[in-house]
Amino acid sequence: MSGIKYLILAEGFSGDPHYGKTARGVLRYRRDDVVAILDSTRAGESEDGVPVVATVADALPYGPTTALVGVATQGGRFPPAWMDILRECIEAGLDVENGLHVFLAHDAELRGLADAHGVELRDLRRPPADLSTATGANLDVPGTIVLTVGSDCAIGKMTVALELDLEARRRGEQSTFVPTGQTGIAIAGWGIAVDAVVADFIAGAAERLVVEGSRRGGDLLWVEGQGSILHPVYSGVTLGLYHGSAPHLLVLCHEAGRTEIEGAGGGPHPIPPLAELVDLHERMALTRRPARVVAVAVNTRALGEDEARAAVAAAELETGLPADDPVRFGAARLVDAVLAAR
Amino acid sequence: MSGIKYLILAEGFSGDPHYGKTARGVLRYRRDDVVAILDSTRAGESEDGVPVVATVADALPYGPTTALVGVATQGGRFPPAWMDILRECIEAGLDVENGLHVFLAHDAELRGLADAHGVELRDLRRPPADLSTATGANLDVPGTIVLTVGSDCAIGKMTVALELDLEARRRGEQSTFVPTGQTGIAIAGWGIAVDAVVADFIAGAAERLVVEGSRRGGDLLWVEGQGSILHPVYSGVTLGLYHGSAPHLLVLCHEAGRTEIEGAGGGPHPIPPLAELVDLHERMALTRRPARVVAVAVNTRALGEDEARAAVAAAELETGLPADDPVRFGAARLVDAVLAAR
Repeated sequence: MSGIKYLILAEGFSGDPHYGKTARGVLRYRRDDVVAILDSTRAGESEDGVPVVATVADALPYGPTTALVGVATQGGRFPPAWMDILRECIEAGLDVENGLHVFLAHDAELRGLADAHGVELRDLRRPPADLSTATGANLDVPGTIVLTVGSDCAIGKMTVALELDLEARRRGEQSTFVPTGQTGIAIAGWGIAVDAVVADFIAGAAERLVVEGSRRGGDLLWVEGQGSILHPVYSGVTLGLYHGSAPHLLVLCHEAGRTEIEGAGGGPHPIPPLAELVDLHERMALTRRPARVVAVAVNTRALGEDEARAAVAAAELETGLPADDPVRFGAARLVDAVLAAR
Repeated sequence: MSGIKYLILAEGFSGDPHYGKTARGVLRYRRDDVVAILDSTRAGESEDGVPVVATVADALPYGPTTALVGVATQGGRFPPAWMDILRECIEAGLDVENGLHVFLAHDAELRGLADAHGVELRDLRRPPADLSTATGANLDVPGTIVLTVGSDCAIGKMTVALELDLEARRRGEQSTFVPTGQTGIAIAGWGIAVDAVVADFIAGAAERLVVEGSRRGGDLLWVEGQGSILHPVYSGVTLGLYHGSAPHLLVLCHEAGRTEIEGAGGGPHPIPPLAELVDLHERMALTRRPARVVAVAVNTRALGEDEARAAVAAAELETGLPADDPVRFGAARLVDAVLAAR
């Protein structure tokens, strides 16, 4: 994929279980493009067979072309220790990709340094300058559009889309993953972070993504979902993405055992029953583009093997739809359901 | 209200039936604060008793403090003829308020001129710099929050909120209109255009507005709705505003006879039956903050008197809720319904 060789910048965090989502996603789905991980606290170890190094200089023998900032920093700016690392990367001739909310391009010093060394600073969450409102072109996209939706944030909507895309391609389908957030963008090498665009343009950004996904050759487009339609903080992004991507089919993602939306203020926000979520999503489809939930992806990461199988069976029973955990048990069953429905 | 005296800039458009929404809204709801309208094509006439003048110089004897750009210009920037008018206003010492998508503050020349003349340029759609995601503070707002929702854009959600607020205040209620778009902001003198904020912050902006509305003394807050939850272009803004403003009660707005969402591309987007919209809105409430639709506001502007009464009766029959056209027949019936439900 495009000759990029990543040095993942994860100083102090590579051993953290909550280790930056973007870094983790790239390590998982672009493993072959990662040559080293920078984390001086774990230098000499390795992670998934990738060497962990102490300094940018130590990483250079592995031949990186691009440094990836994939670990959240504290506060709104890059702290001084990070600035040192970023400077060293730029001075070593590495492009820098950044998945954080704060943009490299807003830092005049880094911008000047990058110009001087002829390297690119790529802010993965920075929206294209020429976005506009949705036009209806989403409804003319040929092929089948599948969107992952969910009962909450951070339950694996991106992972499910990636796993189902991989399985579909294994079966010889012309299948494309459509990235809508920074991690998906880092993994796929294109996309728009739809939660970072001007509110009026959410559907327009989503529309542009499915048009582009189709142009890239998919007749099966797996759109990475965001948030949840009943999420107190992010539902606007969720619904704009839903309507703007104009899916034909939906895969509902849920984490087994989660009963409340996490991290939203104002007291507990209960998650409705899965069957209610299925119905609500179908009724919230555009009247011009009805959408059906065809499968349930159950995230069982917190469960033992038997409990996991029981959770999948319970989701099937409750919704009457095929369910599975595609990470744990493979994506075959969910892809079967999608292919049967298109 | 704050000593502002408006010169409304409407060159070439003041006689147009689609005459800028912001200009029309201010003329209707802040009539006493408007001293002149600039439109050289109708100089010497008057509109609602306000004199129409040919030039900025001709307007000055009426004592304006602030020029209001309330008429959409072509394309993304201010055309040359408008730039001349804006320069004259600034040179005459007038502040300038702008409700357009394009910002005055992005024009270096106007900014320099404004600094030189000590006047303010206020872009009503420009979001506050310090917005963030919703925190749950919306759920702690005392009093009753009422949101106007609708079957489409441009059917009167702002007007309904304004009329119901006026009627509630006539009855002695501590009632406040909460503006969420440029016209509402121009009318009320505060607010945030929620469709102009970063997508992640829609609910955060809405939350801030109800917190601020409450601080301003309302125990009955009328939140101006935006878009429609099934609108192919703007639904993300609509739902983020719904969840972020955390309403207890909803007033559903509809234009009699409208069967399709207007101006959305990709072929006809049918509007569902009103009863279905009532149910869908109630089910899409936050699980933590159930919301009920308590009345239907029917816009009958296109109908004769008898047809208008029939349309209101039909909406009542279909939904089982009190309905009325508050502009045509007064807001009493709808305010009764809201007060009975709180």
